[in-house]
Amino acid sequence: MERMFDEELKNLKEMLLRMAGLVEESIELAIEALKEQKEAPAQEVLKNEERINLFDVEVDEACLRLMALRQPMAGDLRFITSAMKIDSELERMGDLAVNVAEQSLILSKLPLLKPLIDIPRMARLAQAMVRDAINAFINHDEALARSVCERDDEVDALDDQIFRELLTYMMEDPATIARAVALILVSRNLERMADHATNIGEDVIYLVKGKTIKHHIDRKRESGSVRPTD
Amino acid sequence: MERMFDEELKNLKEMLLRMAGLVEESIELAIEALKEQKEAPAQEVLKNEERINLFDVEVDEACLRLMALRQPMAGDLRFITSAMKIDSELERMGDLAVNVAEQSLILSKLPLLKPLIDIPRMARLAQAMVRDAINAFINHDEALARSVCERDDEVDALDDQIFRELLTYMMEDPATIARAVALILVSRNLERMADHATNIGEDVIYLVKGKTIKHHIDRKRESGSVRPTD
Repeated sequence: MERMFDEELKNLKEMLLRMAGLVEESIELAIEALKEQKEAPAQEVLKNEERINLFDVEVDEACLRLMALRQPMAGDLRFITSAMKIDSELERMGDLAVNVAEQSLILSKLPLLKPLIDIPRMARLAQAMVRDAINAFINHDEALARSVCERDDEVDALDDQIFRELLTYMMEDPATIARAVALILVSRNLERMADHATNIGEDVIYLVKGKTIKHHIDRKRESGSVRPTD
Repeated sequence: MERMFDEELKNLKEMLLRMAGLVEESIELAIEALKEQKEAPAQEVLKNEERINLFDVEVDEACLRLMALRQPMAGDLRFITSAMKIDSELERMGDLAVNVAEQSLILSKLPLLKPLIDIPRMARLAQAMVRDAINAFINHDEALARSVCERDDEVDALDDQIFRELLTYMMEDPATIARAVALILVSRNLERMADHATNIGEDVIYLVKGKTIKHHIDRKRESGSVRPTD
């Protein structure tokens, strides 16, 4: 029984690692499609999403089996419920990569608006965040999880900068509108990916510390500033 | 022990109902702010989000307590894990309502682009979807859950129509660009809310039927068309 539990746990970690690998790859491919105006890598993103979705279901099922198998307490229970949350964050990142790929497909048929610098930079940040968030989970590495959460501000700032720059493009030349809007949506989707990686980071900190930092709830509870019954 | 479990379960349902009520209210307020170019309802959305976030944490904790308390099997376990998922869908809907409120605040300072018809319609659809999704969960109502999932296509079609219309506005008159982009983002956020309500609907169907329809995985597994190990 014990060994079966350990096997399932190991299997669960491996599935999440592979899911995160697919997400990272999808970001890479979607941005390659965007930068080089190629269709093939965008199509690969759609295939990856199918794989990610199936992992999503398998991870959920594995978590339910684990809970039924050993009726885990405290630490193990937290680990398994964190895995369920992380699983759904990864699944959403897969969806967002598909959104980016779809915009890439639209843009591949139009002249390039400008050489892309900041969007690929955002994408690299998001990739590193998802990779580090999963490693933080597997290794119970609180410091790494915190560094993921901290990087979210950098991504938000880039999204903001890209948005403003593209607005000026549109205002100066209406012929750029369709392309600029597509790039704004790409940027927003990358920004949301970073949010999901941050959510994973927060889940890991909760897992390791045994308390939640989500929504800065610890501070708010202490100060009594927020109550759901208000 | 049994009574304590039932009490906790009742409490859990009530928290989710109230969370969903806050989400519904936030959509209402964000659209009121948008239509009538008022700041006050948008500010209310930000306050609601704080309450929703605190519920998010409380629901998570209640679920963990319930799992530890009675080490629930099968049906109860599925109910509790569904509650955790639904909780996080509602929390995200709260975030999306904040995004809409933020765009409303930007737009409240600018002349109205056009009388808004389709966006409020989308908002009403999203509100009804979240309300019905939660009621389907509380009452184990599979038919209602399915009807929520089916309505998602209508919302997607509206989003698409709004997007195209706003593109033409921008192309005809660059002075409308900032406002049109803001409205496109509002529409996308509403579309994502409907996605989250649909996710809740899928969770309910899983809960009631004991099998997942997420990603149409049942059909894909039967046909052997997708395997995560591919």
